Amino acid sequence: MPSATPNGFEQSKQTPLSTPLPNPSLQVTADHQLKQVEAPVYAPRHGEVLLHIKATGVCGSDIHFWKAGRIGSLVVEGDCILGHEAAGIVLQCGSGVTHLKPGDRVAVEPGVPCGQCFLCLDGRYNLCEDVQFAGVYPYDGTIQRYKTHPAKWCHKIPDNVSYSEGALLEPLSVVMHGIKTAGLSLGRGAVVCGAGPIGLIALAAARASGAHPLVITDLEPRRLEFAKKLVPSCQTYQVDRNLDAEGNAKEIRKLFNFESVGEYGAPDVVLECTGVESSVITGCYTARRGGTIMVIGVGREIMNNLPFMHLSLAEINLKFINRYRDTWPAGLQCLGGGILDLKSLVSHTYPLEKALDALHTCSDLSNGSIKVQIIDEEENVL
Amino acid sequence: MPSATPNGFEQSKQTPLSTPLPNPSLQVTADHQLKQVEAPVYAPRHGEVLLHIKATGVCGSDIHFWKAGRIGSLVVEGDCILGHEAAGIVLQCGSGVTHLKPGDRVAVEPGVPCGQCFLCLDGRYNLCEDVQFAGVYPYDGTIQRYKTHPAKWCHKIPDNVSYSEGALLEPLSVVMHGIKTAGLSLGRGAVVCGAGPIGLIALAAARASGAHPLVITDLEPRRLEFAKKLVPSCQTYQVDRNLDAEGNAKEIRKLFNFESVGEYGAPDVVLECTGVESSVITGCYTARRGGTIMVIGVGREIMNNLPFMHLSLAEINLKFINRYRDTWPAGLQCLGGGILDLKSLVSHTYPLEKALDALHTCSDLSNGSIKVQIIDEEENVL
Amino acid sequence: MPSATPNGFEQSKQTPLSTPLPNPSLQVTADHQLKQVEAPVYAPRHGEVLLHIKATGVCGSDIHFWKAGRIGSLVVEGDCILGHEAAGIVLQCGSGVTHLKPGDRVAVEPGVPCGQCFLCLDGRYNLCEDVQFAGVYPYDGTIQRYKTHPAKWCHKIPDNVSYSEGALLEPLSVVMHGIKTAGLSLGRGAVVCGAGPIGLIALAAARASGAHPLVITDLEPRRLEFAKKLVPSCQTYQVDRNLDAEGNAKEIRKLFNFESVGEYGAPDVVLECTGVESSVITGCYTARRGGTIMVIGVGREIMNNLPFMHLSLAEINLKFINRYRDTWPAGLQCLGGGILDLKSLVSHTYPLEKALDALHTCSDLSNGSIKVQIIDEEENVL
Amino acid sequence: MPSATPNGFEQSKQTPLSTPLPNPSLQVTADHQLKQVEAPVYAPRHGEVLLHIKATGVCGSDIHFWKAGRIGSLVVEGDCILGHEAAGIVLQCGSGVTHLKPGDRVAVEPGVPCGQCFLCLDGRYNLCEDVQFAGVYPYDGTIQRYKTHPAKWCHKIPDNVSYSEGALLEPLSVVMHGIKTAGLSLGRGAVVCGAGPIGLIALAAARASGAHPLVITDLEPRRLEFAKKLVPSCQTYQVDRNLDAEGNAKEIRKLFNFESVGEYGAPDVVLECTGVESSVITGCYTARRGGTIMVIGVGREIMNNLPFMHLSLAEINLKFINRYRDTWPAGLQCLGGGILDLKSLVSHTYPLEKALDALHTCSDLSNGSIKVQIIDEEENVL
Repeated sequence: MPSATPNGFEQSKQTPLSTPLPNPSLQVTADHQLKQVEAPVYAPRHGEVLLHIKATGVCGSDIHFWKAGRIGSLVVEGDCILGHEAAGIVLQCGSGVTHLKPGDRVAVEPGVPCGQCFLCLDGRYNLCEDVQFAGVYPYDGTIQRYKTHPAKWCHKIPDNVSYSEGALLEPLSVVMHGIKTAGLSLGRGAVVCGAGPIGLIALAAARASGAHPLVITDLEPRRLEFAKKLVPSCQTYQVDRNLDAEGNAKEIRKLFNFESVGEYGAPDVVLECTGVESSVITGCYTARRGGTIMVIGVGREIMNNLPFMHLSLAEINLKFINRYRDTWPAGLQCLGGGILDLKSLVSHTYPLEKALDALHTCSDLSNGSIKVQIIDEEENVL
Repeated sequence: MPSATPNGFEQSKQTPLSTPLPNPSLQVTADHQLKQVEAPVYAPRHGEVLLHIKATGVCGSDIHFWKAGRIGSLVVEGDCILGHEAAGIVLQCGSGVTHLKPGDRVAVEPGVPCGQCFLCLDGRYNLCEDVQFAGVYPYDGTIQRYKTHPAKWCHKIPDNVSYSEGALLEPLSVVMHGIKTAGLSLGRGAVVCGAGPIGLIALAAARASGAHPLVITDLEPRRLEFAKKLVPSCQTYQVDRNLDAEGNAKEIRKLFNFESVGEYGAPDVVLECTGVESSVITGCYTARRGGTIMVIGVGREIMNNLPFMHLSLAEINLKFINRYRDTWPAGLQCLGGGILDLKSLVSHTYPLEKALDALHTCSDLSNGSIKVQIIDEEENVL
Repeated sequence: MPSATPNGFEQSKQTPLSTPLPNPSLQVTADHQLKQVEAPVYAPRHGEVLLHIKATGVCGSDIHFWKAGRIGSLVVEGDCILGHEAAGIVLQCGSGVTHLKPGDRVAVEPGVPCGQCFLCLDGRYNLCEDVQFAGVYPYDGTIQRYKTHPAKWCHKIPDNVSYSEGALLEPLSVVMHGIKTAGLSLGRGAVVCGAGPIGLIALAAARASGAHPLVITDLEPRRLEFAKKLVPSCQTYQVDRNLDAEGNAKEIRKLFNFESVGEYGAPDVVLECTGVESSVITGCYTARRGGTIMVIGVGREIMNNLPFMHLSLAEINLKFINRYRDTWPAGLQCLGGGILDLKSLVSHTYPLEKALDALHTCSDLSNGSIKVQIIDEEENVL
Repeated sequence: MPSATPNGFEQSKQTPLSTPLPNPSLQVTADHQLKQVEAPVYAPRHGEVLLHIKATGVCGSDIHFWKAGRIGSLVVEGDCILGHEAAGIVLQCGSGVTHLKPGDRVAVEPGVPCGQCFLCLDGRYNLCEDVQFAGVYPYDGTIQRYKTHPAKWCHKIPDNVSYSEGALLEPLSVVMHGIKTAGLSLGRGAVVCGAGPIGLIALAAARASGAHPLVITDLEPRRLEFAKKLVPSCQTYQVDRNLDAEGNAKEIRKLFNFESVGEYGAPDVVLECTGVESSVITGCYTARRGGTIMVIGVGREIMNNLPFMHLSLAEINLKFINRYRDTWPAGLQCLGGGILDLKSLVSHTYPLEKALDALHTCSDLSNGSIKVQIIDEEENVL
């Protein structure tokens, strides 16, 4: 009886690993609780590997699942292990696994698409409606020690890329998909809205792509200072709460020498990384005629006050993305080849046993945390 | 003293034609009046031709300038001859005109860009901020008998294209720019929202481009019946006022066999030709994952209730256009080569002397008018 | 032991169907022979269906495998059933097949990609290096009565599409992939080089896509006459053997009114469907500055005399395609929706028992054959 | 009488400057001589500026005009001042010049397109068939002290960009147009063929665009050493004369870890900067399936031995460019913003009075020169 597929999109039943192993995990519940509990360890099925997860980053969506219980149509209907920004080491390979072996260090691509639908066929597997995404109910995530995952969606990382960096490949993937979709180009200006983790990575990746001048915006001076350290050649703009969207846009455009060289100097691309309505609207007025607003940040279900007449007259594109596709290989080249250095983004780390603290730190906006990671230093077994 | 430029972007003073000619015209005033008055006739400057305008179509924007006094930042601050959908015959050529001669029949491209800015250099002359657009204050339009226009922006029409069809090249241009931007393709589905003049032309042009299946939507059954006659292979959908945007979208998608073939059958492209908020939102829910909403209709300054979360998850592009660029030559090939037949769209015609009636007919939504044109059958002079 | 995959890329062993059925087939041998022999009938494996093949078109590549024994790196190293342009009816479904049932009429997409490599992931499955292609050694083709094929690569055809038309979807797919890659657009000129089956389909598809003016070229007046009947609004050009490539190009460009409107009128796109060097070079001189040569015809391994300096100065793209991807659904819309009518291309039909005659007819250039098909009218069993 | 146009595409007669000035120049003659002679100085016409040329780079095409007397259809039919890679200072402005004033430092875009043809309208002004290109007969170039040039095609350079760097904007423009056309992307591999001036700039620009891994190839170890110093993170490959194109391609692909990660690691883009047939063919075998060969180097009129079958099977695009369009602004951002540092490319400089030596140095392949520039340190007058 055929059971598993090379794609790793798995319907068959999981069976426990024969050797029992302690497996601490962090789970979210349907009633907005977090609990640290022992989770079962499964044997890798056909096409799967058993991983020892070494690093998992905490993402705003983890906090959202915890506090709000849902993101759009994704609802936490039962207990689910959180975590989807991860890297680890291969402990054991299921049948049919050829490109990985025990001891390989890998970064985890958390979404496993069906491989069958027209969107998968067409290469847009991130749009697959049947994706099984680690850390999104009912699919367990990576804040546990031992997790099985399809080998196809584990990307081998070179020696000079740490597990912590490997885990950063997931947010970097969001950015790389956004940057590719937006179409940055050498010597052309761009604005990054928002200096949170995604915005900061977007800033670094835009610099690595040759976009210039670069301006990053935020409400918080402390975050802008960090951005300036990360990419010294950027300019920063603190959003002025006393100005409306057009007013802030006008100030941002001045940083592109708009006054002296005219519309030409205005930015081609706005990478919107906040998901905040006022920021999206500011972006609409900031981009140059014929430019692009790349909506990377996902916030409210519905947005209002979109300046359609302006968008029409200026022929501005509003582009949207859903996660990423085919980004790990390029991301790995960037980190392994020294094209991008994101290590300084990790502001806080916690051992797996203190995963709960990691989530609390990430959810507290007052502590200046950027990227919080859970690092498991437990020795490898098997 | 150099005065005129081959681009026809003219700053120098106009001088009256030496031979006085009667020149009835229709003007809009700053206080929302329309008046039929004699207008001066000017001698063609360097690079210009003097045209006898034979046909001008009335456009919704003419009505808007009359009733509302403005469209976005374009304000009727003084008397201005209306009209920008026009064709005519060359009566006289200014110096430096080489590709036209008296007697040539031409379609008028009404917008004259500066030819100097980076947007002009880059081929996006429709975005030029200094465009001089016929029929938009302070630039006189084509609802007059004799008008000068830069030769560069007059496109010679073949014998088998009538003046009336020549005037239709302007709304066709809007559609062609939208279709090119949207990227229709052979055998892929599309929806046209709105069965007014632009929507109907979009429907015909989408059919000519090979898109299939095609669905056109409107609130009015009478308009949908006309659409079905224009493009018999299309399907029609009467928008249900009792349903919300998602509800209407679901019904439209059924016409693409969505139920049986899944998301694959849903339309790639939505050509939004109404400018109405509820229609834009319906479009957002109608396009397939990875699809495009092409906003052709320009309506309100600001739109609300945009389903951003849905647009992100489905990775849908929202594209906007401003008029057209480089569309007359292709439009002429379509009309002259029999690829498109738009003649049946002209529902009402009036002589130049009754131009006022033409505007009233166009502004009356109860009379079933589609495209109203002003035809001047006065004999050619000079 | 897992054996089959939903992708249908099959490594496991085939087993004979329990009910023996007579299965005439046409096989090519390593020593350039054709033989009509009984072939085994296999039971559909997981994800497969058993088809009764009702129509198979003969392709130039079938003739090439027979006479030359190879195409590029694809070598006939042993007996192999030919045929890859096919449609049929589902007789039996293997396990795991959900979207098809016995009695369904389907068109066969003959190439089954691995579904695992980066090219498959990226949606470019036509470039998969491990594709299993029906009719290319060692994968048996469709000139047999009963063939198993992965259900995923069988496309349901509507009642108003005949098996013969269903079989035409394969060459139409080549054309659709070429046209999409080339980027035809409404009211823009195109040239089709070669009035063989692919060229004729390209002509019809270019017309359905709205390209205009259209010129088709060939050496044979008879083929051009057929083209003119198929697409009356096209122009034809008989290639002049006494002229060189530049000379022929100059004549072709005249048909686009090049003399009167200048470079503007020259064709944007050349669809090269001959695979002949002189035709490729003629195409290079025919396309307008900034245009595209779409190399659809595959001929010699190596080509000489490419005018690189001209291509550089005119900034012309030379694009190449390998078969097709994601074309059956759109092709079906075209045939089922009446957007394209290709029925007249089938000039000769033979019953399955006379498949040998079909290949001889196709290989004989003197009989005016266009598309030769093998039609099996045997009643359905099971 | 209108005389000049804002575009600067000038037909009217030049008149000498009222104040006579000594103006040494270097001219090529129809009989392959170079001569250093005094040239007339002209008054700036409408829309023009009079420049004091401070730096001019010598280009391979200058040598070619001198030695071969032609490049393609461009023939040296009479005396012509050479030079087209230039920067200088504005001495005087003609009427109608608004965006420049005396004392402004500028880089010269040497090609002045007609501004009227469909290619200019469409933004592809580099393809204009009536371009007036400085340094190409009969249009005098920049190896002279005082030259008039349309203000529109003079780009203001900031204080931190030297004249020498300003002159490098011309070869950088070739590269930027090639890179934009090719479509490099962050973390994707690329190969640069040829470590001459264009190849080296392409290497630096590809690194600035985030492409990785990067390999540069050449026959000369000395040039590869220089490349490695310019971009330390690149790899170098010395072309092996004992291997054929496929053999060299195989070795180059190994540098992309092709052996371990398969076709995935092969380079997306090959930037061909040699114009040598064997290098083009090597490129064809080096790019990955679905990749692009960007032909930047212009060499022979005709090329042979192109592997068409391979290009078809691998679906590789062969793209060609002609110079550049809209590249100075982005290039200036790169140099002024520190995104690119090309100063080390200038290996030799000569004063204007020794321009002849500069050309001899550039034409001598044995001296290791990279970019030779003529620098005029004469004080500014007027």
